[in-house]
Amino acid sequence: MSTIIIYGGTRENGNTEILTELAVKGLDVERIFLKDFKVRPIEDLRHTAEGFYDMGDDYSWIIEQIQKHEVILFATPIYWYSMSGIMKNFIDRWSQSLKETNGDFKREMSLKQAYVIGVGGDEPHIKGLPMIQQFNHIFNFIGIPFEGYILGQANKPGEIVHDKKAIEAAGLLLEELRGYSYIEQEQ
Amino acid sequence: MSTIIIYGGTRENGNTEILTELAVKGLDVERIFLKDFKVRPIEDLRHTAEGFYDMGDDYSWIIEQIQKHEVILFATPIYWYSMSGIMKNFIDRWSQSLKETNGDFKREMSLKQAYVIGVGGDEPHIKGLPMIQQFNHIFNFIGIPFEGYILGQANKPGEIVHDKKAIEAAGLLLEELRGYSYIEQEQ
Amino acid sequence: MSTIIIYGGTRENGNTEILTELAVKGLDVERIFLKDFKVRPIEDLRHTAEGFYDMGDDYSWIIEQIQKHEVILFATPIYWYSMSGIMKNFIDRWSQSLKETNGDFKREMSLKQAYVIGVGGDEPHIKGLPMIQQFNHIFNFIGIPFEGYILGQANKPGEIVHDKKAIEAAGLLLEELRGYSYIEQEQ
Amino acid sequence: MSTIIIYGGTRENGNTEILTELAVKGLDVERIFLKDFKVRPIEDLRHTAEGFYDMGDDYSWIIEQIQKHEVILFATPIYWYSMSGIMKNFIDRWSQSLKETNGDFKREMSLKQAYVIGVGGDEPHIKGLPMIQQFNHIFNFIGIPFEGYILGQANKPGEIVHDKKAIEAAGLLLEELRGYSYIEQEQ
Repeated sequence: MSTIIIYGGTRENGNTEILTELAVKGLDVERIFLKDFKVRPIEDLRHTAEGFYDMGDDYSWIIEQIQKHEVILFATPIYWYSMSGIMKNFIDRWSQSLKETNGDFKREMSLKQAYVIGVGGDEPHIKGLPMIQQFNHIFNFIGIPFEGYILGQANKPGEIVHDKKAIEAAGLLLEELRGYSYIEQEQ
Repeated sequence: MSTIIIYGGTRENGNTEILTELAVKGLDVERIFLKDFKVRPIEDLRHTAEGFYDMGDDYSWIIEQIQKHEVILFATPIYWYSMSGIMKNFIDRWSQSLKETNGDFKREMSLKQAYVIGVGGDEPHIKGLPMIQQFNHIFNFIGIPFEGYILGQANKPGEIVHDKKAIEAAGLLLEELRGYSYIEQEQ
Repeated sequence: MSTIIIYGGTRENGNTEILTELAVKGLDVERIFLKDFKVRPIEDLRHTAEGFYDMGDDYSWIIEQIQKHEVILFATPIYWYSMSGIMKNFIDRWSQSLKETNGDFKREMSLKQAYVIGVGGDEPHIKGLPMIQQFNHIFNFIGIPFEGYILGQANKPGEIVHDKKAIEAAGLLLEELRGYSYIEQEQ
Repeated sequence: MSTIIIYGGTRENGNTEILTELAVKGLDVERIFLKDFKVRPIEDLRHTAEGFYDMGDDYSWIIEQIQKHEVILFATPIYWYSMSGIMKNFIDRWSQSLKETNGDFKREMSLKQAYVIGVGGDEPHIKGLPMIQQFNHIFNFIGIPFEGYILGQANKPGEIVHDKKAIEAAGLLLEELRGYSYIEQEQ
């Protein structure tokens, strides 16, 4: 099983990235930094006769990359108590995939496994919980098992290394992801 | 007291708009349809020496409009169990305002009153609650009193008119907003 | 369809009761005031060979009353941000019913409809939401449709009458419950 | 600094207890098993002239024990998506302490530190979150810093030992609590 990380941050080498990279250390993963791609907001055309049209951006390409992997790691700084706007815009576009693919998108996604890593500065272990609940609703709707999440606390650049609990949790996640890879190699 | 509506929807005359307009019927309000403006995602430059730069979009203009009013009504369809990505991007940019204005943004916002109207198709009264909790954290941080919210249920265009509870709640909100205007006129 | 109210309050004629009675005005309902009954806390004997034993209290009798009705209205003051301890103890005992009845309890409960009315003094519309989410998980587990809830704000005795939104919501619930009764009579 | 554990479980040596004891291994702690005490439900007499009366149970004695310690560890199995009814009844009684002590209860509690350990069988990392949010509201109201929580997953007796994340988290909490004790000894 292979892993793709969807990064929602807007800063190079941010706390979320530092923490997330600990969880995939030594693994062969693909990384999508949403900030480096053009993903336009959804236009709600679900109810039009024409349906959605090609929006001339990188959305479909990113979805294609996701389809090559079995584990999706959503890694986002907690901006204003939820995922970043660019990650939200990306997820909003799933409505288009749902409509266009006639169920295939949902079917394919439901075979994967999802993890969330979120780092915030303002009591993320409490004030980040609605974000976790939101992701849970998202994953339930699409049918992806929500395998786990890590909430880390950090504000200034690099500060995440002092969050011992988050660092340990990243270590455990690494073991878990390594376990998946190992099983695969055996088969 | 005057009201500004920040619309997060991406469809003309959507259910959220229909419901929200019932709550401001006959009042003199300003409307910002975020979909018609260019608001770029935040770039997290809080920790750089240079700070934020002018992003050449409509963000600052929208903030200026907000500053002219006392009541802000955040009206968003519930996309994937929270506010739309374009509304999230707009709010993410508040980090820039916070940093640039040296406290003025927070001070001005804290004198206003905030309401949220959200319409969704998948059990909004339950699955929309994390969104309400997110808005609550947002408003608490910025210091705006969270005066109330309405969650409506609708999926197909126009369907919101059948949500009696939401319609009644919009009527009560209208009375409340009228009360504010009235008080103002008296003074 | 007939309605039973499970009252979790500990004060006569409290705000929760005033609000709830508005929602059933003129209807033929049964009322269980938990404070007037003896319901012992659960003892977790799910994993013992003997299982649960008769605890010599009123629990089973209350469950029998519930089984005579189709609509269950859980009406509780919000104590410390959730249902009262006596209501929680009552619900905890459902584990016993689940184990003892071999699925019958779940089957019978799943045919009913549940409503929640909660009144609290400290921002119930926000801080009461975890309670609503708890009830939602409870109802999902047992399979009862969660038809709706009302959160009211009041502190001093009788104060609930000033919560216009809650009063209106109670009026709408009354219409809804009357609708059920009417349908029944027609059949 | 010394620690008191308030146990809300109703089974000897339950999963919550096993996990919690890992977090205090070797420390000198006091344990209150609520199931072994008589704590009557609150009667809401806040608004009566007489106020609360002596309920002839163990509540006041338990509060006295708590007052001797600086760290309070609330350890409860997750029954029906929240703390057990006996723990809720105990907390409900705080309303009495608040009223009777004229602010002393709040003042004393606000000098302590609170932790929560909850173990459940049905997706506790998601469905236990409203309980965490509820505890957060409780602690905020009373003014106790909410220092951390552990959610563990287990159903059958002893099963918690297989929840690696919870076991690790208990180890980290032990380090944290040991740190407190050490600091104290140094002073």
